[in-house]
Amino acid sequence: MKKVLIANRGEIAVRVIRACKELDIQSVAVYSEADAEALHVQLADEAYCIGPKFSADSYLKIDRILAVAEKTGCDGIHPGYGFLAENASFAEACEDAGITFIGPTSDAIKVMGIKDVARDTMEAAGVPLVPGTGIVPDIETGRKWASEIGYPVIIKATAGGGGKGIRVARTEEELVKGIEITQNEAAAAFGNPGVYLEKFIELFRHCEIQVLADNYGNVIHLGERDCTVQRRMQKLVEEAPSPALSEERREEMGQAAVKAAEACSYRGAGTCEFIYDYREDKFYFMEMNTRIQVEHTVTEAITGVDLVSQQLKIASGEKLVYKQEDVKLNGWAIECRINAENPYKNFMPSAGKVDTYITPGGIGVRIDSAMYAGYSIPPYYDSMVAKLIVHADTREAAIAKMKRALGEFVVEGPGIHTTIPFHEKLMSNEVFKSGKFNTKFLEENDVINS
Amino acid sequence: MKKVLIANRGEIAVRVIRACKELDIQSVAVYSEADAEALHVQLADEAYCIGPKFSADSYLKIDRILAVAEKTGCDGIHPGYGFLAENASFAEACEDAGITFIGPTSDAIKVMGIKDVARDTMEAAGVPLVPGTGIVPDIETGRKWASEIGYPVIIKATAGGGGKGIRVARTEEELVKGIEITQNEAAAAFGNPGVYLEKFIELFRHCEIQVLADNYGNVIHLGERDCTVQRRMQKLVEEAPSPALSEERREEMGQAAVKAAEACSYRGAGTCEFIYDYREDKFYFMEMNTRIQVEHTVTEAITGVDLVSQQLKIASGEKLVYKQEDVKLNGWAIECRINAENPYKNFMPSAGKVDTYITPGGIGVRIDSAMYAGYSIPPYYDSMVAKLIVHADTREAAIAKMKRALGEFVVEGPGIHTTIPFHEKLMSNEVFKSGKFNTKFLEENDVINS
Repeated sequence: MKKVLIANRGEIAVRVIRACKELDIQSVAVYSEADAEALHVQLADEAYCIGPKFSADSYLKIDRILAVAEKTGCDGIHPGYGFLAENASFAEACEDAGITFIGPTSDAIKVMGIKDVARDTMEAAGVPLVPGTGIVPDIETGRKWASEIGYPVIIKATAGGGGKGIRVARTEEELVKGIEITQNEAAAAFGNPGVYLEKFIELFRHCEIQVLADNYGNVIHLGERDCTVQRRMQKLVEEAPSPALSEERREEMGQAAVKAAEACSYRGAGTCEFIYDYREDKFYFMEMNTRIQVEHTVTEAITGVDLVSQQLKIASGEKLVYKQEDVKLNGWAIECRINAENPYKNFMPSAGKVDTYITPGGIGVRIDSAMYAGYSIPPYYDSMVAKLIVHADTREAAIAKMKRALGEFVVEGPGIHTTIPFHEKLMSNEVFKSGKFNTKFLEENDVINS
Repeated sequence: MKKVLIANRGEIAVRVIRACKELDIQSVAVYSEADAEALHVQLADEAYCIGPKFSADSYLKIDRILAVAEKTGCDGIHPGYGFLAENASFAEACEDAGITFIGPTSDAIKVMGIKDVARDTMEAAGVPLVPGTGIVPDIETGRKWASEIGYPVIIKATAGGGGKGIRVARTEEELVKGIEITQNEAAAAFGNPGVYLEKFIELFRHCEIQVLADNYGNVIHLGERDCTVQRRMQKLVEEAPSPALSEERREEMGQAAVKAAEACSYRGAGTCEFIYDYREDKFYFMEMNTRIQVEHTVTEAITGVDLVSQQLKIASGEKLVYKQEDVKLNGWAIECRINAENPYKNFMPSAGKVDTYITPGGIGVRIDSAMYAGYSIPPYYDSMVAKLIVHADTREAAIAKMKRALGEFVVEGPGIHTTIPFHEKLMSNEVFKSGKFNTKFLEENDVINS
C-alpha cells in the first residue's frame, strides 16, 4: 500500500495519518468546508475539500470520496469509525473501483450489520447468545417460552431497531399485554407484526474483545475492554482489562470473539461486544463492530500492538505477525473521552474557538486529539474532541495517573466546555474506584455533583 | 513520604511533581524570580521563590532550599539532575536536617565524585577500567608502561579535572615530551606534578547502565542506554537498547554496573557510564552518575518501570518490587533533546516567548517538557526545553515514529530557535539509521546541512 485516503475527520483521521507516516504510506485527507483548518488537513500529504459542512454533503458522499481517491491514485481507503465505516455499499463501491477498503469485506459488514443474520451466524458458530425465541405464534406459546427463559424478558419486534419496538415484561401479565401492544405497534410502524422474546439482562457490564484477522485465515484476539461507564448508551470511559472478568471468562470470551470473526470470514480489526452478566458470571454476544473503535487505544496500551498500523499492514496483504501466544496483557489502561460538552448542564454540546490548549505529558500518558490552540470546534460533528489514555501497572495506579493528567489538561475558549471536570470527579468516585458497577452506574450516581 | 520539595526547575521538576501526584505525595516547588511563570510552579501544590534569576543565587542556595523544606514540613527533597543533584554537601545537609535526600547517601556521592577514589573502588570491585598506571616515577618507567598499555595513551594529571591536564601521546616521542609538559603544567596549575597513563580509546560508543537499589541491599540493572550521539560531549539523542551491544556484552555490562552500585552501597536510581570499544568489543567503566539522568525515559519505555516513582518509593523505605528476572526489555526507544538553540548557527542558544506550542501525540509518543504556549524561555538556564521520546517495536520503527512526531512538533516565537530541524535531519541520516557510529559522529558528519 503506497497511498491511502482517509475518509474521516477529527482525531481518528489524525490517528490514521500518523500510522501512514510511520509506515511511509502517503496520506490523502478529505474535508468539509467547516474543516478547512482542521489538523488532519494540515498533517496529511494532500487534502481535498469534498463538500459543505453537513456530513451528508461531505463525509458521507461516497462518489466524491471515491473520485478523490481515484484522482490522487490511492490504493486504499481508511474509513475510520462512524460516517461510512460500517457502510457495506461504501465497501462495495471501493471493491468495485479496485481500491482496498481498509476493513472487512462488504459481505462481512452485511452479515454483522443485519441483526437476524448476525444472530443466526453467531448461533451456528457456537457463540453464546442471550437466550431467546423465534417469532411468537400466539399468546399461549409466548407465555410458555417466557416462563422457560425466566422473567424479566424483552419483547422485540423482529423488524424493529434503534430502540424502537422493544418492551420489557417482568410478569406474565405484562407479557400478555406487551406482546399485543408490540405486535400492533410493529405492524403499524414496520408493516410486520412479528415479535420474539429475549431474556432481559438488566444489570450487566459492557465488555468487548478486540480481534485482528488477516487474509489468510489467521485470527487472534487481544483481550477485552470494559466500556461499562456509559451515559445514555454512549461510552465515556473505557478500560483494559476489565475489573470484572476472571481469567477463565476472559479466555472464553476471547475464544468466542475469534469464532465470531471466523464465522464471517473477518479481515482486519474488529470488535465483538458482549453483555457480561456479572451476577450469573455469563456473557452473551451483543454485536460485532466491523471497524476500528474509538477505544482501541486501551488495547494498544496493554498489548503493545499498534492496531491501526496492523489494519494497514493486513490491508496491504501482509500476514499477521502476532500469534495468539504472543499477545500478553501488561498493566492497566484507561481512556477518557473528552467531549466538548458541559457536564454541569446535562452534557450540552459546545463549540467555538479554543484559545488555550495545554495537554498533559510525561510517562504513560497518550493524547489522541485533533485540537490545537486557535482551533475552532465546529458544531456540526461528534462532540468528542480528544482522548486521554493512561497506562500504568495497576488499576489504582492508572486512576491516579488519569487524575494527574486530567489536572494538567486545559481546553479553554469563549463558550467552550468539556467533560474534563466530569472525568476528574469520576476518577475520585468511590464506586468507580471500587471497580464494581454496571451500565446503570451514571444513571444511579450523580458523579458531577458529588 | 508525605511531602517532597523539588529542588530543581524545568522538565525534571515537572517530571518529579507528576510522580508525586501519582503517588499521592504533596509537592513543594522552589523557583527563581525568572521562573515565576514556570510550569513546575503552576503544577506543584505549593511554590516558593528562593532568589534572583541566577542559579548561584537561587537553585544552588542550599540554606534557602532547606529553609523552605523545613517551613513546609517536607520529609523528602528530590534534587533532579544538575544543580545540587550530585552535591555531597547538600545531601549531607539534608541528612543533618533529618530530611530524606532522594538519592544516594552523601558518602556514595563522594566515592563516585572523586576520580581516584571511584577508580580504586571500581577496581577493587572488579569493574573493568580503562587500562592505566600509577603515578609515573620517571620517564624510563613511563616509556615501559606505555608500551605495555599500547599507543595511543593519555597522560593525565592526577590532580587535574574538567579536561585540564590531559594530553594524548601516539608515539614514544610524544610520550616523553608529553609527560614532561604535563608534569610542569600540573605542578604550576594544581601544585601537584603527578601524572599517570591510561589507554586512549579514540573510537568508542557511550553506553550506560541504569541501576536501581533499595535500602536493603537489593540492586538491579535495567539494561543499557546508548548516548553516542554527542556534540561537544553533550548528549543530544539517546536510545535503548544500544544498536552496538551483543546480548553477552549487555549482560556483562549490566552485572558490572550492579557490582559498581554494590561497591559504594548505592541507593536509589543511578547510572554507570561505560566506554564501549566496539572495535575490540570491550567496555570500561567511565563514571557513575549518582542521580536520575535526563535520558532515563528511554529505559522507562523499554522496561515499563517508572524510575522517578521508584526513587520516591525507595526513599520512602520501600523494598524494590522488581527482581532482576522481572526486567524485560521490550522494543526500542529513542529520546531527542529539544534545545532552544539554533542548529544552523552553531547551536547558539535562544530565549524568548513561545507563541505557538503544538506537541505531537498518538501511540508511543511521550513529551516531557515545561513549555506551554505563552511561556517565556529564560536565558539563564540550560537550553534543553523538551524531551521527545518514542517507543516502537524496532529501531527502524522508532526512527520512523520519531520523524513523524518531530514533524508535528511546533515551538515558535520571536527569536526562538530549536534543535527540532537538527533531529529531523538526523532521523533521515544514513549513518544514524545504520546504527554504526561512534562519539565522533557529529564532528565528522555535517548533519544539519546534509
